[in-house]
Amino acid sequence: EGSLEKYYTEATHTESGICYLIKNFSWPYAFPSHSNPGTPGVILEGGELGYALSTAYGAVLDNPNLIVACVVGDGEAETGPTATAWHLNKFVDPRTCGIVLPILHLNGYKISGPTIFGRMSNKELKSLFYGYGYEPYIIEGGEDIYKEALEVFEECFRKIEKIKKIAKAKRALNKFLRLPMIILKTPKGWTGIKELKGEKIEGNYLSHQVVVKNAKSDAEELEALEKWLKSYKFNELFDKNKGFIKEIKSIIPKGDLRMGLNKHAFGKKTYRPLTLPNVEKFCEDAAEPGLNCSSSMRRVGLYLSEVFKMNKSNFRLFSPDETYSNKLDAVFKATMRAFVLPLKKFDKDMARSGGIMEMLSEHSLQGLMQGYVLTGRHGVFASYEAFIQIIASMVDQYAKFLRVAQEFEWRGDIPSLNYILTSSGWRQEHNGFSHQNPGFLGNMLQKPGCAINIYFPPDGNSTLVILKKCLESKNSINVIVAGKTCEPRWLTPALAQKELEKGLMIWDFASDKNPDIVLVAIGDYMTKEALAAIDIIKRETSEIRIRFVNICALSSQGFGIFNKRLTQEEFEEYFTSDKPVIFNFHGYPQILKQILFDYKCYAERYSIHGYIENGSTTTPFDMQIRNNTSRWQLAIEVFNKMRNKIEERKVKKLIKKYQDKIKEHVEYIKRYGVDPEEIELWQWRKF
Amino acid sequence: EGSLEKYYTEATHTESGICYLIKNFSWPYAFPSHSNPGTPGVILEGGELGYALSTAYGAVLDNPNLIVACVVGDGEAETGPTATAWHLNKFVDPRTCGIVLPILHLNGYKISGPTIFGRMSNKELKSLFYGYGYEPYIIEGGEDIYKEALEVFEECFRKIEKIKKIAKAKRALNKFLRLPMIILKTPKGWTGIKELKGEKIEGNYLSHQVVVKNAKSDAEELEALEKWLKSYKFNELFDKNKGFIKEIKSIIPKGDLRMGLNKHAFGKKTYRPLTLPNVEKFCEDAAEPGLNCSSSMRRVGLYLSEVFKMNKSNFRLFSPDETYSNKLDAVFKATMRAFVLPLKKFDKDMARSGGIMEMLSEHSLQGLMQGYVLTGRHGVFASYEAFIQIIASMVDQYAKFLRVAQEFEWRGDIPSLNYILTSSGWRQEHNGFSHQNPGFLGNMLQKPGCAINIYFPPDGNSTLVILKKCLESKNSINVIVAGKTCEPRWLTPALAQKELEKGLMIWDFASDKNPDIVLVAIGDYMTKEALAAIDIIKRETSEIRIRFVNICALSSQGFGIFNKRLTQEEFEEYFTSDKPVIFNFHGYPQILKQILFDYKCYAERYSIHGYIENGSTTTPFDMQIRNNTSRWQLAIEVFNKMRNKIEERKVKKLIKKYQDKIKEHVEYIKRYGVDPEEIELWQWRKF
Repeated sequence: EGSLEKYYTEATHTESGICYLIKNFSWPYAFPSHSNPGTPGVILEGGELGYALSTAYGAVLDNPNLIVACVVGDGEAETGPTATAWHLNKFVDPRTCGIVLPILHLNGYKISGPTIFGRMSNKELKSLFYGYGYEPYIIEGGEDIYKEALEVFEECFRKIEKIKKIAKAKRALNKFLRLPMIILKTPKGWTGIKELKGEKIEGNYLSHQVVVKNAKSDAEELEALEKWLKSYKFNELFDKNKGFIKEIKSIIPKGDLRMGLNKHAFGKKTYRPLTLPNVEKFCEDAAEPGLNCSSSMRRVGLYLSEVFKMNKSNFRLFSPDETYSNKLDAVFKATMRAFVLPLKKFDKDMARSGGIMEMLSEHSLQGLMQGYVLTGRHGVFASYEAFIQIIASMVDQYAKFLRVAQEFEWRGDIPSLNYILTSSGWRQEHNGFSHQNPGFLGNMLQKPGCAINIYFPPDGNSTLVILKKCLESKNSINVIVAGKTCEPRWLTPALAQKELEKGLMIWDFASDKNPDIVLVAIGDYMTKEALAAIDIIKRETSEIRIRFVNICALSSQGFGIFNKRLTQEEFEEYFTSDKPVIFNFHGYPQILKQILFDYKCYAERYSIHGYIENGSTTTPFDMQIRNNTSRWQLAIEVFNKMRNKIEERKVKKLIKKYQDKIKEHVEYIKRYGVDPEEIELWQWRKF
Repeated sequence: EGSLEKYYTEATHTESGICYLIKNFSWPYAFPSHSNPGTPGVILEGGELGYALSTAYGAVLDNPNLIVACVVGDGEAETGPTATAWHLNKFVDPRTCGIVLPILHLNGYKISGPTIFGRMSNKELKSLFYGYGYEPYIIEGGEDIYKEALEVFEECFRKIEKIKKIAKAKRALNKFLRLPMIILKTPKGWTGIKELKGEKIEGNYLSHQVVVKNAKSDAEELEALEKWLKSYKFNELFDKNKGFIKEIKSIIPKGDLRMGLNKHAFGKKTYRPLTLPNVEKFCEDAAEPGLNCSSSMRRVGLYLSEVFKMNKSNFRLFSPDETYSNKLDAVFKATMRAFVLPLKKFDKDMARSGGIMEMLSEHSLQGLMQGYVLTGRHGVFASYEAFIQIIASMVDQYAKFLRVAQEFEWRGDIPSLNYILTSSGWRQEHNGFSHQNPGFLGNMLQKPGCAINIYFPPDGNSTLVILKKCLESKNSINVIVAGKTCEPRWLTPALAQKELEKGLMIWDFASDKNPDIVLVAIGDYMTKEALAAIDIIKRETSEIRIRFVNICALSSQGFGIFNKRLTQEEFEEYFTSDKPVIFNFHGYPQILKQILFDYKCYAERYSIHGYIENGSTTTPFDMQIRNNTSRWQLAIEVFNKMRNKIEERKVKKLIKKYQDKIKEHVEYIKRYGVDPEEIELWQWRKF
């Protein structure tokens, strides 16, 4: 009906008798286990990005009765994300979670040659997967493979049952329980054409893609095709009037056991909204803007701690070894980090059934979160801003999935994927250039039509208000960019809420009526610098009428929230239709340019400050200076643009004063290694 | 001198007596082997992205006398890229290449908790690395660790020598040679503070980062600090006047054996320019534009085949299992795919010493290419366009390295990283939405100040001219975006060369003087559609004066080549200063908006067509229609914008005609599954 994609996403094909999932969408389908017909399972296949395995592990988290049989192709198995995902067995507790039964389907070939795994010896294969922490079973051989497979599957399910029993019985177990995995060896293109024109087809890469292309004109190909298709004896299995024969019908599972009808394959069937604590409880006094400071991440940690308490088995935090470093450790009041390898007595905040997934693999965590959310539960992925870029491609593919899923009513609602990007580049002056990278924002914002929101809360209170909105939202990708350092509070929860409705707000306490110039900030550190610039301007002059606009939401459609894009009319209400506008932006300036372009853009009116790759190991304020986003540089630009409002001699003097300050600063930090008190102790004052 | 980064990139720190490299830059430093003092080695450490190991393997390719001791932290070892990089031993021939001696340095902890590898049993560790194809040696234990380490290293070097001998002796060897790797177990924070305030420090994650923060004010901390530092007995090893004592001096290596002076650590010392064949030899007749067709990738394959022949051991192609699929297989006339696992007699184009690296891991290939190029040799990475996004983060980090490296004269010149993105999204109609992703372009173009060029050759001849320029270039990242399907040839080599100088050109054969409107195309498929639109416009009307501009180069600075950005004046020469301009762009429209913003932008004048995420499994021309980039939609827009030039009734009729065509097309492809002949057989005609 209008889109061939529909048929494609519904299609399945069989190879070696195991039902494969459509590539690349990692959407869990149900797979009935013959051994335990009462235990539904989910089967996945990976596609080019190789994250089926981690998604499968995400599906079984907090689903203690679920067994997921996850098929990994030996091509996909060569990818990095899959290669480390095998280690996820160290993070999933068989007492409180389900079991993944990985099946490495080893047909030996990729699109144009042998796979690594296809040429390893059985000894090496067994050794590798034993090392990964599994009990590997190899299924191979010719005629008897069905019998062999049945026996191995039965054995695996028995083993799984046994381990589930041990895990349930011993609450205080401090031992790793080795689970089975299967290496299934079958020839590539099995049961297909054996040979054609002297080339080996079955059991070779040549059986990839379309094998007989010219059967219409080539008698040899036609004969091979006919022989192949007739080998299935379809006429003995199917009758035009009666359909399939009884033997076939009897093995088709009934009801919920049919592939695609398992409730876990539909997030909507298992989706329960989170019970969310009131934000006000965790917000802090901001009646006097800028008077007190907070760490946005400390607030988030406290809030999420409560979310954990109120939502047992329905919420998880995913963090690449960074919960402490990102200052979210208040969550440890409510839950622990999951780890099922033996613990030592001095280990902290770790438990077999912990709700926090910490592994130093962004790829694995992304897969886990996808699996968790696709099966109807809720998650937050907290990362250093710079390193989320590692999974840009995976998030791209997920955004595609969301876009296509919208078109199908039967998919229903699932929770959003929520990211917190913290330890921002602007405060990675100690770790240096490698830790400064806002590139993920551009990656997300360039995708028109995908439901993607990027939030830039200006302070701790706004962070909580936005976080709550994200946790309530559905079918989107939400990214919150907020720092962990102690920074001024600007907004009461009510004002934060008000700003969030439109995604931006004029801050009255820092604005004049009928402004001559508009200063705009996007991002917490940028907001602080812009307000400090206004502080300077107001102390130095009385001639300039200024407006401050704070933007807390950008989407792939423009300013504001997805599907509530700021219109041209609204745009002019905030930014005037003709006054100079100076933006101070958290990310690359290029990103803001592409957004402004869509609002009747006369570029000369705008000036855009942002991260221009002038990173280094230095001081926090020097990071601002290097990238031309500091209060002093913003003030200089305002003085420059307001030459018609101020006496020329005064302008010159002011500009020189702040240019000198910049020069002196460079000398100062070389000498002392820290920023001057003027910067570190700066506080907003009413004007 | 102005940048703390300088000191940082020069610094090293020691942990367990092994010299670590600065994180994240993957820059190879020399490490002298005590066992074989004549064999210089290179040591690497990975940083958050975990690609030290693949970079090390890249360094030894075609360097048969090099041994690289590569240290991998047990944090980094959890990452996907490292987890699969262990398999690179299957692609590196010990006869023609050097040896990597991986050292998994297992101190057991990450920033805030235990590592996976730190809690695995020795049996599991040995089993895992045996499975990966190594002979693992474990170094552990207390007092005797130095002796033990020395013995293990000596044993490993003996083993390596033995294997080198076997490999050299047996040219036709069809057996995998198992090489050693070391698992070095030492306590985290070894020799540091043992305990503090009841907390275990040494041998625990608490020794990460700064352990005593308050020694100035806290007597207990001061005492611990003093005891720790005095434990090294520095006064016995160092004399203020004479420097270090003889025993210390004697172990500092001399000359080239010093860390950082090994020639392989400087691309400039081993850099030899490529000998490049003349492009004309491989170009095809394009005297009559659009008359004949070629596949850009077939041309590239033929050209690279010659590059391989002329540059033994100085050039490699990196391809994730896609050489055939990307239609580059002409390279197999000159070289093979590297594979050192046993080969079977029906395997094709594979050899132990092949020059083409095919592994289904973009991460591994990126690391290999970095290692190869950083040590002075040349490479091309050919990928499906959609999947290059997988390594966006790695390329980001490399761009940072290039930017910083520019500041240091001693680093000198190294070859550029060259990417070919093919199997473009516009011709992935059969593979579907997941294979349609031009996101990498935006990722690269948002980074101001990094030497990044993106090339969009409009045809096969241009592709060769641009490829040659990339292979000659230094210190940059070059990305060539070109299709593999058979498409019209437009430019002679001379014209292609002319277009490349500025990065764009007015195509006289498709342009009028004094145009009323400008049509611009960026990308091969976009060029074809734009020219087909001009063909329509010219056949339907005689009133519209049109200009066609083709852009073949964008950089992170704007239109044209990096450091040769198109000026405002030049911009107006090509695009006029006031006429409507319609762009047909290969990538996301947002990317072009950010570039246009920087050229005195009055957005109303421009209209931008590009990939707007309307992907699917469909026909090639339907991909254009869905994304509003087809000839019909471009023609409709031109008619619309030229209403003042054409009679209104005629405009309406024309627009209706092409709108109807679009509707009919949707019906047609549903019925026949292919595009109509009108599209498939279209050819440019002179007007």
